[in-house]
Parts: sequence; C-alpha cells; structure tokens
Amino acid sequence: MARPRVALLSAEKISQAALDQVDAVGDFSIPDIARELGVSPSSIYHHLEGRAGILNGIRSLIGRDVVREVTGHGDGMPRGKAVPWQDDVRSWATKYAGAMSRHPQAVALIVSEQAADAPTLEIYEALAGSLRRAGLAHDQVLIAISMLEILVFGAAIDAASPVSPWKVDPDKHANLSAAIDSLPPAERQARAFKQSLEAIIQQLEYERVRGANRPTTA
Amino acid sequence: MARPRVALLSAEKISQAALDQVDAVGDFSIPDIARELGVSPSSIYHHLEGRAGILNGIRSLIGRDVVREVTGHGDGMPRGKAVPWQDDVRSWATKYAGAMSRHPQAVALIVSEQAADAPTLEIYEALAGSLRRAGLAHDQVLIAISMLEILVFGAAIDAASPVSPWKVDPDKHANLSAAIDSLPPAERQARAFKQSLEAIIQQLEYERVRGANRPTTA
Repeated sequence: MARPRVALLSAEKISQAALDQVDAVGDFSIPDIARELGVSPSSIYHHLEGRAGILNGIRSLIGRDVVREVTGHGDGMPRGKAVPWQDDVRSWATKYAGAMSRHPQAVALIVSEQAADAPTLEIYEALAGSLRRAGLAHDQVLIAISMLEILVFGAAIDAASPVSPWKVDPDKHANLSAAIDSLPPAERQARAFKQSLEAIIQQLEYERVRGANRPTTA
Repeated sequence: MARPRVALLSAEKISQAALDQVDAVGDFSIPDIARELGVSPSSIYHHLEGRAGILNGIRSLIGRDVVREVTGHGDGMPRGKAVPWQDDVRSWATKYAGAMSRHPQAVALIVSEQAADAPTLEIYEALAGSLRRAGLAHDQVLIAISMLEILVFGAAIDAASPVSPWKVDPDKHANLSAAIDSLPPAERQARAFKQSLEAIIQQLEYERVRGANRPTTA
C-alpha cells in the first residue's frame, strides 16, 4: 500500500496540503504535511526545497489560476496594444486580489519569502510589460507594481474581516458610527477596493504624463 | 510561589504573550500562553474572553502606541482646525502602518475579528472626525477609512518581504528585471507606500470637492 502513495507525491500535492494547513491554522509544518500525505518528511524534501520551496509552491498554486486570466492566454505574453493599460491594471489587481483573498492567512507567509515560482513571475512580468508599453519609466513601473501589490495584499486581508469590522458605541464614536450606518455593510469592501484602484490608476497616469514631458534620462 | 504569579496576571500580559507567539510562529494558543505564563488556561479566561478577547488585546497593544501619536494628546479628541485634514490622514496612515509592520503575522489574525478595543476604536474615531470636518459625506468617510486600512494592512505585509522580493531571470522577465534594477531596493517600499497614500489623498480631495458641490442629501 505504501508504494502507490509515494508514487503519487508531487510538488503540487505537497503545496496543496501546506496551503490547506495554512487556511485552517495559519501556518504549515513539514512533519504535519508528511503525516497528512502518509509519507516521510524526507520524501518531501525530494520534491521541494524545504520551507522556502513550499512557500513558493503555495504561491504558484494561487498564481496559476490568475495567470491565464491576467495574461489572456496563459503564456505571459501581452495581449497587444488594443487594450488600454488601465484595463490591464484593473484586471491584474482584481483577479490577483480575488485569488489572494481566498487565502488571507497565506498572504503574510508567502510574502515573507522571495518569489521564485513561474506563475507569479509571469503575472508580474505581464504587468511590468503593460506599464512599460504605456510609457512609464522603469522606476515608476517598479513603484506601480509595489503600489498594486500593497493594494492586493491589503484587500485580501480586509476580505477576511467581519461584515461589521468595528464594535462602536455611538456616544463615544459618533463620527465612526455615522459613517458605518451610511452604507450597507456588504458594499464597504468592494467600494474601498475599487476606489483605491482608481486612485492608483489616476496617480500612475499623472506619472506617465509627467514622465513623457520630461527629458529622457538613462 | 504560585500566588504572586497569578496576582501578576493581567489582560495586557496575556495579550503580550499571545503577540510574542504570533510574531514567532504565526499564531497563538491559550494552552501555550498558559504554559508560558505559568498559569492555568482557565485563569486566562478570567481576564480575557477567549480567543476573540485575546485578539482584541493584541490589537490594543499595537494600537496603544499609535493613539497618542495620532490623536495628539491621547484622548481621542481632534487636534483642532489648525491642521489640514491631509496631514491628519498622512499621520494616521504612517503611524498605524509603522506599528502594524512590526507584527506582519498578526495582521490577518486581528483583522479577522471585530475590533472592540478602546485604542483601535479611538484611532478610527479620530480619523473619522477629521475626515468629517474636512467635509466628506458619511459614506465617503467610511470608504476613506477602508481605503487607508487596506493601505496600512498591505504595507505592513509588504514590509516583511525580502529586500529583493522577486527572483527574476532577465531573459524571461525583461521588463520586471529592468524595473527592479532601476531603483535601490531599500527605496521601493517607502516610495510605494508614500505614493499610494498621496494617491488616496488626491482621490479623497476629489470626492470632498464633488460632495461640496452636490445638493445635500440625508
């Protein structure tokens, strides 16, 4: 009975077991994964390089579904000039935030490790290419990616908050209470994400135009 | 010997032990806290209402240091009209992100629980008051708070990322590589945070002016 189980072991299976543990209890351990999959801890190291390798495996599981949506055809190539860069940015942030928000406990863990997996790098390269073609300078491309990443991470965390995130006392917290009462709870997150995304796009457009009017530097 | 230890137990001590555990391993457990403090698990329930209570205790530890800085004198009252609302927003987001980024693993945990602790609610009420006095409509106050919260959560998570967050191959990831090489690694996070914050402030100013030119509704 042991042989077939070992034969079925793969980097993907290990990563999925780790992600399931993170979703359940906030972290994973190699002994726990080994127990769950009925294999020895050393056989896990055969497929993935320890903790860092597993974290990248988790990233690649989350990123895989985003790749096809973000890049259009799943090979990381741009979709051509027909789509305005703002739509690329909207699509990237929305799809990526959607995928990340299904695993809010995983966000801090995977971000702590350098991203080395193919799907994640492909998603980021697609975004960098789109921003570059839009005319952003290299440093502004990096800042733009980081701004969008902060938004995605933050929104994924926010998505796990309760529908009513604050237990207010109208006497002590008059302004906060009035703000909370002004909007159906379900609308808060979606509107905040969308408005943040549009704020970033506005800012990038400003930098793009400013860069275009500036004498070219190295 | 047991008596003095029990006498020294407090909500703050319990919360600090829980936060130390979260920083170390990503989560806490009541049995582990009890063991660490040399008390019985039931004595912990005496001070804090289980897991939700401890999560709010952690929030209040993180929030406490922010309160004085954000509200000016630590009682949650506004600092008066002398300071432009944009400065209040900058100060709030910067101080709060600073405090949260010292505990990136705690972010997802505490956000998953309704905030009921005094320091956090005080910080949020101070922000809501400032935005309201600036002339934002109630619903825009709520959206603004949520946008800034997403930024703070995201930046706290991003702060825990490695100095070089992506392992790029210049042949495969030409645009991303060029972007990364264009900026000293240490500047990326600070500039992305600052530019996001200014983008949000711009957007709020737009909403503020738009709201002021709109006929008043209930």
